[in-house]
Order: sequence, then C-alpha cells, then structure tokens
Amino acid sequence: MAGKKASDRNGNPEQAGKKTLGLTVTKAGDFSEWYTQVVTKADLADYTPVSGCIVFKPYSYAIWERIQQLLDSRFRKLGIKNAYFPLFIPESLFKREAQHVEGFTPEVAWVTHAGEEKLGERLAIRPTSETIMYDSFSKWIRGWRDLPLLINQWCSVVRWEFKYPKPFIRTREFLWQEGHTVHESKEDADRQVSAMLSVYREVVEEHLAIAVISGKKSEKEKFAGALYTTTLEALMPDGKALQMGTSHNLGQNFARAFGISFLGKNGEKQIPWQTSWGMSTRVIGALIMAHGDDYGLVLPPKIAPIQAVIVPIVFDDTKEKVLAAAAGIRRQLEQEGITVEVDDRDTYTAGWKFNEWELKGVPIRVEIGPRDIEKQQIVLFRRDTRQKETAKMPAAAAAVKGMLAEMQDALYQKSRQHIESSIADAGTIQEIAAAAKGRKLAKGFFCGSVQCEEEIKGKCDGATSRCMTLGSSEKKGKCVVCGKEGVAAYFGKAY
Amino acid sequence: MAGKKASDRNGNPEQAGKKTLGLTVTKAGDFSEWYTQVVTKADLADYTPVSGCIVFKPYSYAIWERIQQLLDSRFRKLGIKNAYFPLFIPESLFKREAQHVEGFTPEVAWVTHAGEEKLGERLAIRPTSETIMYDSFSKWIRGWRDLPLLINQWCSVVRWEFKYPKPFIRTREFLWQEGHTVHESKEDADRQVSAMLSVYREVVEEHLAIAVISGKKSEKEKFAGALYTTTLEALMPDGKALQMGTSHNLGQNFARAFGISFLGKNGEKQIPWQTSWGMSTRVIGALIMAHGDDYGLVLPPKIAPIQAVIVPIVFDDTKEKVLAAAAGIRRQLEQEGITVEVDDRDTYTAGWKFNEWELKGVPIRVEIGPRDIEKQQIVLFRRDTRQKETAKMPAAAAAVKGMLAEMQDALYQKSRQHIESSIADAGTIQEIAAAAKGRKLAKGFFCGSVQCEEEIKGKCDGATSRCMTLGSSEKKGKCVVCGKEGVAAYFGKAY
Repeated sequence: MAGKKASDRNGNPEQAGKKTLGLTVTKAGDFSEWYTQVVTKADLADYTPVSGCIVFKPYSYAIWERIQQLLDSRFRKLGIKNAYFPLFIPESLFKREAQHVEGFTPEVAWVTHAGEEKLGERLAIRPTSETIMYDSFSKWIRGWRDLPLLINQWCSVVRWEFKYPKPFIRTREFLWQEGHTVHESKEDADRQVSAMLSVYREVVEEHLAIAVISGKKSEKEKFAGALYTTTLEALMPDGKALQMGTSHNLGQNFARAFGISFLGKNGEKQIPWQTSWGMSTRVIGALIMAHGDDYGLVLPPKIAPIQAVIVPIVFDDTKEKVLAAAAGIRRQLEQEGITVEVDDRDTYTAGWKFNEWELKGVPIRVEIGPRDIEKQQIVLFRRDTRQKETAKMPAAAAAVKGMLAEMQDALYQKSRQHIESSIADAGTIQEIAAAAKGRKLAKGFFCGSVQCEEEIKGKCDGATSRCMTLGSSEKKGKCVVCGKEGVAAYFGKAY
Repeated sequence: MAGKKASDRNGNPEQAGKKTLGLTVTKAGDFSEWYTQVVTKADLADYTPVSGCIVFKPYSYAIWERIQQLLDSRFRKLGIKNAYFPLFIPESLFKREAQHVEGFTPEVAWVTHAGEEKLGERLAIRPTSETIMYDSFSKWIRGWRDLPLLINQWCSVVRWEFKYPKPFIRTREFLWQEGHTVHESKEDADRQVSAMLSVYREVVEEHLAIAVISGKKSEKEKFAGALYTTTLEALMPDGKALQMGTSHNLGQNFARAFGISFLGKNGEKQIPWQTSWGMSTRVIGALIMAHGDDYGLVLPPKIAPIQAVIVPIVFDDTKEKVLAAAAGIRRQLEQEGITVEVDDRDTYTAGWKFNEWELKGVPIRVEIGPRDIEKQQIVLFRRDTRQKETAKMPAAAAAVKGMLAEMQDALYQKSRQHIESSIADAGTIQEIAAAAKGRKLAKGFFCGSVQCEEEIKGKCDGATSRCMTLGSSEKKGKCVVCGKEGVAAYFGKAY
C-alpha cells in the first residue's frame, strides 16, 4: 500500500492529471478553449443561469481580495475615502450628461417594477456611478475648503453587453472600484488622473507581473463624457490588447450637467474639475491569460492567495513523523509572512495533489517525505519553470522566499519581453493590418481623429488605436492615414 | 487674535455648537428627529433621489469596514470562504421554494429590460441569495468529501419595502454579509447555526457594546423557508427591539427544492442540511441609537474609525511648538495601535473643532496648548462622560489606552443595565400590552403558535414575540394566551 503511494510521487503526474483533472488542450493549440478550461478546472469561476453572469468562486474572489488590499492601502495613503452610493439611478438623472447617456444607454438594465407595482420612473442599474454620485456632490460642495473631494467605491456594476460573454473578461455584471474626485483646477485634476494611473501601473506591473503600455485614448475610444482618458494596456498571447485600468479627466462636463460649483478663494463662484478611474475583475482574466501554461494557472507570488503548498509524502509507518515535519516547515514559512497550506488530505494520492496544485497555479510546492527527513531536506517545485530544487530544512523559509522573489521577477520579465518583442513599427495602414494579423501591436503616428480611426478599423481587420503616447520625449510625425501631425500611437485588436 | 482663540477653548462649546453645527433637539425630547439629525450632522449618511436609498458617506462606511474586518477574520478562522454570486435571480429560480417566494415576492425589484430589449424572463434583484446560490451548490456537491461547504458573501441586497424609510434601519438597498453552509447532518447544521450566532454576539456585545437577548423566532417571525431562526435582539431607547443578526437552520427545504444531494459515507444518496446567517448595516443604526446623546454620536472605542483626535490649541507665537508636541503625541499613540488624527486645520477655531468631534462621537479628544506643554501634560476629554482629565506627556499612550478600555466597558455596562431593567414579567396579555406601552420588553410563557401570536399583536398595540428562550435551564410554563405548555419568550414592538 505504501509502495502504491510512493509510485505516485515518482510516477508521471501529467499522465495522472490528464485522466482526472488536467487540461485537455494546450495554450498554443486552442487558446480560447484553454482559457475556459483553466477558469473552470482551477475552480476560479462557474457559469450561472443568468446569461453572461458568473459566480466568483472562493479562489478567484481571494485573488480579487488581494487586489483590493493592494489598491485600497494605496488609495488611503492618497487621502481617498471609501463610500457607498445606491445601485439604482433614476432615468432622468442618468440621462443628464449627453455623451455619457449615449455611451451607456444601449447596455443598461432597467428596473421597472417593485413587488406588484409599476414604478413611476424607471431605474437604471449602475453601469458606472458618475450620475448618481455627482448629484450628491452638488449638495456636498460649497466652497474651496470642501476640495479636493476624494471618494472611492467598491461595488458591482452591470453592463448588458450582447457580445459573447467570457468569464472575467466580458461579463454582464462585474466587480470593480470606481474612484471619483473633484478639484479646484484642471491642473489638480490632471495630477490626480496621472497619480491614479501610476497606482494602477504599480499594482499591475509589480504585483500582477504584467507589463503594460500606457497613454491617452483617442476621441473615439475615450470614456463617454470625459475630456480625456488615460489607460494601461496589456498584450495577451493571442495578440489582443486588454485594458487593465483607466483614469479619466472629466473636465467640467459633469459638473455643469449636475450643477456642481464652489466659492473659490477669490470669492467667486467656480465650476470644479473632476476625475474618475477604475480597475475591475477583468484583470483576473489578464492574469490567467498572461501567465498560465499547459498545466493550468500560474499565479505571481505577490498576488497568489496561497504562495506555497506543502504536500507531505505519507506512508503508513512514517505518517506521524512526516506530518510533524510538515507542520514545522509550515510554522517556519508563516513566521516569514509566507501564506502556506499543508495538504494533508488522506483521500487523495500525492500525485493527484501535485496536479491539482499545479492546475491552481500555486507558486511553490514543498514536498516532504521520509527520505527527505533522513536527509534533513525539503524538495521545492517552482510552478513557472516546473524545476525542482532541494533545500536544507533549517533554511526552508529563506529558500522559499528567495524562490518566490525569483519567480515574481521572472514572470514580469517574460511579460515585458513579450510585449516589447510584439511591437511592430508601422508607417502605413497596410503595416498596421499586417501587425494585427501577426498578433502584434503596431506603433505608428496618429492624429487621433475619428475619421482616421474609422478608416484604420475598416482596413485592419478590426484593429483600433489602443493608446496615444503621452511623454514629451516621444517624437511627433505624420499620421499614417491623413498625413497631418500626430503622435506615436499603438494599434491592435482588443478584448 | 491669540486671545480670541483661547477663549474658544475655555468658553462654552455647547453654545457655539448650537449656533453652528449642533443638534437642535434632545434625544429624550424627540427621539426620531434626534436620530435624523445625528445621521446627517455627524456626516454618516445622506438622502438620495432614489426613494428609500441612502449614501453611506465615508464615516459610516468606515464603521461598516470595521465591522467587516471583525466578522471576516472570525469567519476565516471557522474555515468559511468568501465568494460572489450574481445580483440577478431569474424569476423561475426565485420561485422554486414555496415559503421563500411567499415571504419575499412583495418586496422584489424586477429588471424587465436591457438596453432597448425586453428580457425573455424577468430578473429579481437579490433580496437574499439562497435561490441563486443553491442552484450552484447543486452542481458543486457530489459526495460527503465536498461537505461542509462554507460560503460567505459581502454585497448589497434590495428589499422594496413600502413602510417609511429610516437611514440604516430601513432602507430599500442595504449592505450585509450572507453566509450559506451545507452539512451532512442536522446536528452539524445546528452547530453551525449556533456558532454563527456566537460570532455575532461577540461582535455586538464586545465591540459594538450593545447588550442583547437571544433565542429562537416564533413560527410567524422566522425566515421564509427556514426550519428555525435564531436571533439577537437589542432594545432601543424608545422601547423598540432591533434585530442585530440572525442565523437560520434551513433544514432540507431548499436542498429538496434545488436538487442538492450527496453520496454519503454509507454509499447512499442523501439530502444535506443547510444554514444561512446575516448581519447588515442596520447595526449602524443600533449603534447610533444605543449610545448617542444630546451632543451627537458616541462611538464605542473598539468600533470607532478614529479613536482619539488631537486638537492643538494654537496661538500665533507658539504654533510650531504646539504642533510639534501634537505630532509627538500622535506617534506615541499610533505606536500603541490607537487610531488617531491631528486636527490642525487653521480655518476653524478650537471650540468649533471640539463640537464637531463630539458630534462625530470620537471617543477621546486630546487637547494640547502652550500651558499644557509648560506642565508637560495633555488634557483628555472622554466623549461618553464628557469629563476631562490630565495626563503626563510621557504617559499619554497608557492614559489614552486606559480611558478607551474604561469607556468601552462603561458603554456596554450601561447597555446591559438598560435592557435588564427594561424586562417586565408578564403573566397575561394585558401585562404584555402594559410593558409595550411603558417602553419595555415583556417576558412571559408562549407556545409559539401563529394563532396566539396574532392575538397578542392585535391586543398589544403591535407588540410581537421577539424571541423564545433557548436554554435548557429556562423554566417552562403555560402560554399567556392559550394556556398550553410554552417556553419563556420576549415580546415587544420592533423596528
């Protein structure tokens, strides 16, 4: 019996995995089906009877909670306070800002009845909360002492898209945070927009280990009602860009529509400047796509709900000794702030456990068996490289910590290398089309006009501008479409 | 100029308060208006254009976040995992459990349209998530190894009540957590129900400092679809009971309705037992009512977002010295884990600040002026007793810590004393009516039947059974209505 279990450890886990719980397609072979299988088999999400809505199962919700902590602590340091506004927006309020209503109305879910009664006015389920929040802001803000007003909200929003849904990436209800600030001047608002994009970049690059490009959205792609939108864009393995977070300067558009004004330091009534910015559970989709492999999910250590899993290799005669050693290692790792679990389930074989934790993308697996105890060592398995190393027991925490840091860095470097090697310079529309076809981002000069954008979209198989570079160090040049002056911009297909 | 500011400190803050921002009614004089004024003037909540829905402003949301932390850490220790299920419930799913649908349908908000399209099936906005969750559970649970399933969700729910709304206490949308568990046996479910009520009791009594009575709900008052409901009930100063948290054993009703079954250890197909339990933002209403006074909110130290506020008494010539001392005290308090703010706004007088922080219920105000620095002391003002004490500067943290602990204890003892002195023994319906009229809870024997409950309600000005005692040590006796055997129960009006 002991022999049987031992063979699981030394046997071929992949074979066992394929039979029981592993993926049946490769990432390169069928990317879309691979994604669906990772989402369901790694126990991240489940489909529901509400079309386009998913269950965020505990494992993906724990990832979201990590992202929440990372963002929330940074928001706090910037003086931003959390609040909660109603889910419902009366139709009249929702329709007050012209561009905003045009952008969002086609996707709004409407409440028309309560109990047996028909409501006097339809209520929109928030697709975003500008309109309900700014009605309150107009009552709260009186003078310059009330500014800046810095509010954030964690909630779910509903956008009833009719395109094919995809868990995390495109669902009709999703979770997010939406920040909303009010400032005395355009410059203050500009600074806030840029500060929030920096927070997002730090979390995405340093914690999610996903490299991004950033810039300004074109007129056509900007947030409905905004003066301008800044964005972080990641590149997925299928060559499509994925928006990771956006930060908008709303100008004075909403303030005028909602009657927000303040008495300035000069004693005169003024119209304030506003920003809004958000990051959503979409980034979990990016995390899966960017790092996963043919064995399942691969989670960057800084975001993984479980950073290390200890799998004791248990035989009947040495069970107690091995479990005690596993508990010791667990304590050692926990003392160093590593989140760790011991998988001591006796209803599964070690081989089965190896496969399951690989599927779930836990960064490091620690194996301890009786022979390891004899040698006073543990075996470390690193999820991304799938390489094994041994470490001496007293140095377990240092070894795990070092390996976690190496893995975090390696994932980011790989992502950085992927996006950088996937940017093709384009001097013509044809070159943009060729880049899109080759799963690359095109970089070319662009004037940002709606007409030029439409022309590119029509001729490049749906590729659109992703963002226009911001930096003053970037060169200017002639728009690849109209030849007028433009800035360097990225083009590609997008999720 | 310096003299003017100094007089604010030594003047009469109450007078200043009444003119600028204080309450215009007393708690005893007009309890309902007092409540409304505390909610709005302490900046806890605001009304919105959506009838019956409020904004949870940053200050009340911070209280809710404290409650979330307290509950969440306890849930985690019990192995309960957070997840997120859709906001929407298809009508057919919502109507699957007969008693449940009867209980909730009159208050459901219905989504009928998305964009320009009429939906094929109406969607309920969740009033509670049993029906949408248990449809998923029926797919997740296969065998005894999958049990217990222990899930919690933080979200908002919507119950479109037509009674007069009251911020926190009765709003059409509110925030809560809802826990849902599935077990092999009734005994396991019973234990879970009781464990969750204990968690709620600990948070309510030890942190919110509100004394409660607990027990089982009668047939009429139990959760729609449950086998039985256990509850914690607090007594508000107006003599009305307020439900602080409930924990239900759902029996096998929902499992049967949603087709949840599992292969037991004996190899046979079995129907599991389920529980659900919740605590909502209603408890913030209880917090306000229970502890507030004629000067505003009074927050128990363990739940206060700001435990101590330092108000430097600033004169032009000693400003730097005083602000430096305030910063030193701040560091000292923070090192002891006390959440502290320094109110160094130079646009308000010290007297104005005193009133504002009293209105907001901050447990301790620390005053530091130039004369205090000379004496190497600080002045501590305790919010509930409104008494001042001095402490030597090097002992500031110990003094504040001690005062916080005393205040926490005093608030709880006062609450305990209030509920215990407000229980009147009742041997007849008339005595229940008299107790209710005298703002008391009546305690009498009760059989728990719907008929007897209706009779009491009709004859006691709306008082109903609040809970039936659980303990085996409680005596049994004859029901005050029908004379059949009953257990001791509490009766009273309720929010």
